Amino acid sequence: MKMTEHSTQHRVHNFNAGPAALPLPVLERVKEELLDYRSTGMSILEMSHRGKEVGAMAQAAEQALRRLLAIGPEYKVLFLAGGAQGQFAAIPMNLMGPHGRADYIETGSWSAKAIAEAGRYGHVHVAASSRAERFCSLPPREHWSLHEDAAYVHLTLNETIEGVEFLTIPETGQVPLVADVSSTILSRPLAVDRFGLLYAGAQKNMGPAGLAIVIVHEELLGRAAATTPGIWNYALQAADGSMLNTPPVFAWYIAGLVFQWLEEQGGLEAMARRNEQKKDLLYAVLDEADFYRNPVHPTCRSWMNIPFLLADSALEKPFLQQAEAAGLMGLKGHRAVGGMRASLYNAVSLESVEVLVGFLKDFRARYG
Amino acid sequence: MKMTEHSTQHRVHNFNAGPAALPLPVLERVKEELLDYRSTGMSILEMSHRGKEVGAMAQAAEQALRRLLAIGPEYKVLFLAGGAQGQFAAIPMNLMGPHGRADYIETGSWSAKAIAEAGRYGHVHVAASSRAERFCSLPPREHWSLHEDAAYVHLTLNETIEGVEFLTIPETGQVPLVADVSSTILSRPLAVDRFGLLYAGAQKNMGPAGLAIVIVHEELLGRAAATTPGIWNYALQAADGSMLNTPPVFAWYIAGLVFQWLEEQGGLEAMARRNEQKKDLLYAVLDEADFYRNPVHPTCRSWMNIPFLLADSALEKPFLQQAEAAGLMGLKGHRAVGGMRASLYNAVSLESVEVLVGFLKDFRARYG
Repeated sequence: MKMTEHSTQHRVHNFNAGPAALPLPVLERVKEELLDYRSTGMSILEMSHRGKEVGAMAQAAEQALRRLLAIGPEYKVLFLAGGAQGQFAAIPMNLMGPHGRADYIETGSWSAKAIAEAGRYGHVHVAASSRAERFCSLPPREHWSLHEDAAYVHLTLNETIEGVEFLTIPETGQVPLVADVSSTILSRPLAVDRFGLLYAGAQKNMGPAGLAIVIVHEELLGRAAATTPGIWNYALQAADGSMLNTPPVFAWYIAGLVFQWLEEQGGLEAMARRNEQKKDLLYAVLDEADFYRNPVHPTCRSWMNIPFLLADSALEKPFLQQAEAAGLMGLKGHRAVGGMRASLYNAVSLESVEVLVGFLKDFRARYG
Repeated sequence: MKMTEHSTQHRVHNFNAGPAALPLPVLERVKEELLDYRSTGMSILEMSHRGKEVGAMAQAAEQALRRLLAIGPEYKVLFLAGGAQGQFAAIPMNLMGPHGRADYIETGSWSAKAIAEAGRYGHVHVAASSRAERFCSLPPREHWSLHEDAAYVHLTLNETIEGVEFLTIPETGQVPLVADVSSTILSRPLAVDRFGLLYAGAQKNMGPAGLAIVIVHEELLGRAAATTPGIWNYALQAADGSMLNTPPVFAWYIAGLVFQWLEEQGGLEAMARRNEQKKDLLYAVLDEADFYRNPVHPTCRSWMNIPFLLADSALEKPFLQQAEAAGLMGLKGHRAVGGMRASLYNAVSLESVEVLVGFLKDFRARYG
């Protein structure tokens, strides 16, 4: 097998929405130990998940995540194959219980997909929606029509496509709150104890694609429908340390390195300060003239995913071409909404955001 | 993030049953382009699955697999998150259809698990079993009690734990044959057109854990139960190039490199010659005295997974210790059956098998 022809390694500014940028020190570590994992004489890609090395890796990753998010012992942390979309089915299978009903809050493309998938497994009540506002704001809590007999209330804490985020966690009384946190997890501290279940695909702010993390209160275990696939049964996976089946070892390993890197950066308080600075810089340049526009209401603007439009949409093509030429990648908006989008996950440095902001100003000066 | 302390890279002989050895040239290629995938300035771990690089990678991998196995255009090839155990549920969900019944052949631990899981979704008839023979032989085809109205007949072409393999493909008439080929796929040519569906976890003979490959005849699509999770619906995934959700990109990429490496080795005819030589060497030393013993009937001995016992089981511990000291790893048998096991997947070289055979002879000379 030939080596690649271009071996000079350069790195661009990566604003992909997911799969997304990973911290360079993590990638360097992966590269360095790829052929010989910690003097074992084999790659971690080649190791049994039942062996002591993978077992130690898996435990260390879970412990680091527990420290970062201050997850209490009453929560199980699962590392499962797949991503958040698999959980759209697994959650109702595991949690809907005998009444078979749940409340969902519709705030954008991803919650809409979660609603459609859950509908296969029971009665899904859309208790609130901001569809009429084109998902540019969040439905006010006082207008939600929640049911007391719902097995859970589901919401998408941050909508990756529309760039809408719950900046405070809504109250749902005795009904457990279930949240998709794929694109916001680890961006800043999160009060895990406000939730019955949190889940996230890894490929936005934690690692590569192919891994979902589920943080579930132990009280919610044991309610799975008989038709729940074994590998998606939370109680069975919790009892087996997420190794009922062969887990996605490599993605788990990289997530563990990302958690370690986050601790070395000062944890989530430090990430919050950096991420607030990053998003403030970007929103400021978008807001300071009519040339660019972010359509989201200021009370619920995402820290991580910032969509924006050009007042003159004919400029989109030169914008994206020139951005790429300047090494600013992944800025094309999602095909569902068009325009542009910059995702500012933890691995996107302040320097990358400054380069982006400089480009935005320069482009505006030349075309505005 | 600190670099690992021991940077000298050595490589052992890896007989793991899965996750298992990968070809060294594949790992070297992965390492070489880890930080900068083909001059894009980012790792393939950080790339959108909707981008052109991942699209090209995905297509190239599928085409290489189609060439290797001579897969006709009437078959769809899916690359899905998870492994074979997820498919234990996905297969009945997709294929059982309105009658809701299927025939299963029980030949070892993995087919038994497939049977248990399928039972959640319909009527599963165990049409034949070698359990009474402790899975050391295969149930003769003439004793199978198949049903004409079964949606499919399921078998496990190679039992990884017991080391039992179908060396010829049984006839099932008009009923589609569905087979788990996790630990035999790509070990030698396979008549794909004899099957309605083939599936395999990648982590044995194709790549890392976290990926399942499904090869399904298009006639079997469109029968999925309404409760099939979207990401496991074969028709939906086939229509979307396995990108209905974010696929496990990195595992797919490595599988593609393994397929390329196999083509460079001369394809599956060449692998068959090498694998036959490897397994013949190992069975010969196991058979030539009473010191070691492989319990499987010679007509169905696996080419890939070779379990063996010591006549004096007290010698197991020194055997495994001395083997590890000699750089022979992964020889401990599965906890379900005990003893020892050597897996001789494609990435295990003839040289590694020769070293193992030398060790077996030496150990016997010293303890026999």
